[in-house]
Amino acid sequence: MVRRTEGVTGGSPGQVAAQGADAGGRVTITEIARRAGVSVPTVSRVVDGRSDVSPRTRARVEDLLRRQGHHKRPTTSPSRAALLDLVFNDLDSPWAVEIIRGVEEVAHDAGVGTVVSAVHGRSGDAREWMRTLRARASDGVILVTSALEPPLHEELRVLGVPLVVVDPAGSPALDLPTIGAANWSGGMAATDHLPALGHRRIGLIAGPPRLLCSRARLDGHRAAPERAGVPLDASLVVPGDFPPESGFAGCAALLDLPEPPTALFAAGDRMALGPAEALRGRGLRVPQDMSVAGFDDLPEVRSSAPPLTTVRRPLADMGRLAVHTVLRLTRGEQPDSPRVELGTELIVRASTAAPGTAA
Amino acid sequence: MVRRTEGVTGGSPGQVAAQGADAGGRVTITEIARRAGVSVPTVSRVVDGRSDVSPRTRARVEDLLRRQGHHKRPTTSPSRAALLDLVFNDLDSPWAVEIIRGVEEVAHDAGVGTVVSAVHGRSGDAREWMRTLRARASDGVILVTSALEPPLHEELRVLGVPLVVVDPAGSPALDLPTIGAANWSGGMAATDHLPALGHRRIGLIAGPPRLLCSRARLDGHRAAPERAGVPLDASLVVPGDFPPESGFAGCAALLDLPEPPTALFAAGDRMALGPAEALRGRGLRVPQDMSVAGFDDLPEVRSSAPPLTTVRRPLADMGRLAVHTVLRLTRGEQPDSPRVELGTELIVRASTAAPGTAA
Repeated sequence: MVRRTEGVTGGSPGQVAAQGADAGGRVTITEIARRAGVSVPTVSRVVDGRSDVSPRTRARVEDLLRRQGHHKRPTTSPSRAALLDLVFNDLDSPWAVEIIRGVEEVAHDAGVGTVVSAVHGRSGDAREWMRTLRARASDGVILVTSALEPPLHEELRVLGVPLVVVDPAGSPALDLPTIGAANWSGGMAATDHLPALGHRRIGLIAGPPRLLCSRARLDGHRAAPERAGVPLDASLVVPGDFPPESGFAGCAALLDLPEPPTALFAAGDRMALGPAEALRGRGLRVPQDMSVAGFDDLPEVRSSAPPLTTVRRPLADMGRLAVHTVLRLTRGEQPDSPRVELGTELIVRASTAAPGTAA
Repeated sequence: MVRRTEGVTGGSPGQVAAQGADAGGRVTITEIARRAGVSVPTVSRVVDGRSDVSPRTRARVEDLLRRQGHHKRPTTSPSRAALLDLVFNDLDSPWAVEIIRGVEEVAHDAGVGTVVSAVHGRSGDAREWMRTLRARASDGVILVTSALEPPLHEELRVLGVPLVVVDPAGSPALDLPTIGAANWSGGMAATDHLPALGHRRIGLIAGPPRLLCSRARLDGHRAAPERAGVPLDASLVVPGDFPPESGFAGCAALLDLPEPPTALFAAGDRMALGPAEALRGRGLRVPQDMSVAGFDDLPEVRSSAPPLTTVRRPLADMGRLAVHTVLRLTRGEQPDSPRVELGTELIVRASTAAPGTAA
């Protein structure tokens, strides 16, 4: 949790200059200035995110502020409309637009503008983003997947900007609110469906192992055949990286096995669109020769040929809840739960069928 | 063109109070206040977009300001990072993310935040958006397609906020910079390709006629067979509305004709993904039984089964150019040309082949 405290810029620095600690027992800005060996206005400039402070001084002051539990209160001047920052690693997938849609909807209704950024996983871009975030005095930040490294989470804490993580990539810091999806049970639901149709050899094209969601879907996939009495075959699990090309390559690898699977679960919808083309190149078809299930329920898979059986991940709802959570935090309230997983749901369409089904 | 003028808030209202007109011959803020029957501070409040002015007074003052050619200069306080607004009708298509990607890339490099909004074609939402735009003192606006009605363009002029339209929906006002794509030549290129493969009956699933891009693609489609000596058959043109479902329905309608076409051009990629499923339901295939070409080159059509022949529309480039244009306008410069169309390019993939090609 990003805990909201009295902002050090809430009053004029002069007002607390005579005291060593405020009513909450925290060290005052004057004391911070003394310990850092700088003037009170310099501490104010650091807190306000202004650029006219040397990086070294900024680091020293921020470190003292952090250690003393000081967080800046965002500007809530009535003359400026509120802004929140929605930060992606990359804007390269249709699922980004689903999250933007949910975030924008709730933010728009609350009169809050949504600033969309991509940091491309490069620390230089993330630093630059952090600088502009300070300058525009954003009221809250929603990070999608692994958009920022943990050291930058810490900088946001120092700024006192509420932070919510959507689709956490790894084990998040204990005190950060996160909004995810029930990836494990979704993975199990997708795979459960396949033995129920009569499949005994079920392939998996997994997501990148560095992402928590990939691991959860893989474990859910493994749990499903065990429950159905279908033996697990490790050779049927191939690596993927989400774009359709990796679904194509993963399916091709499975088809090259001496005994290929009759069904496969691709742990992401875009990857699940690749197998149809890999099969087509060998004169094979979905679902007659291979059942295919995906994960996400992106709009475009509802009309693919054939329409895709998939696990619906409520991306727009995750975005909506993220805004509600950030807005609660800006009001100094706590979310009902710091970590939420929204339910996933199996949607059965024409890409899965009993093995050996005729056209 | 949104012409940049001396802002009425550039100096203190008191500085011009003694004059009836400024050096440029425009009526001063004092004179505007006199004519509107309000105080000078009230005119300032209208210009600053503050909420403490009655709607009637605001309308009267804005009308006078507009008639006198006054435009507000956006706040360029060094303490606040610049913002631009990117406004869509809806955030419901993967092509939105392509435009966002291009806009964000250039804006990020310029230290400008990108506020993404959707107004859902509802005037209430657009009014609300306009209110928050005033409050956050946006430095520029990029409208995508028909996001705002022309009366709101006029309001933006009054605010003095530079405005650029991407993918203009209809004939834009003569003085507004627009960035589109070469839709007519793209439509012609897609259709040209089909007689070259030997097709004589070529269907078209058209876009909504209210959009200028739909009309340009339709006209380009018509021009192509004429050039190739293929007679035009009006019964082969069916209406569509861009989502895949309308491509499915359009293809089904064409297949129900006594003599169906052997190839079709869907005037949008999402619509071009529908025919494969309509064909599959009748035991037919792309391209053996029907060649299909699309328009846009969205990432997902590069890996569809089969990969789609399409006309590349440089959506991210259109977004990039829009930011460059807005930034020039904020500096008081003019764009090189007020109306730009970026070139389109035919990309041939596996969804088109000679008629009667075997699997």
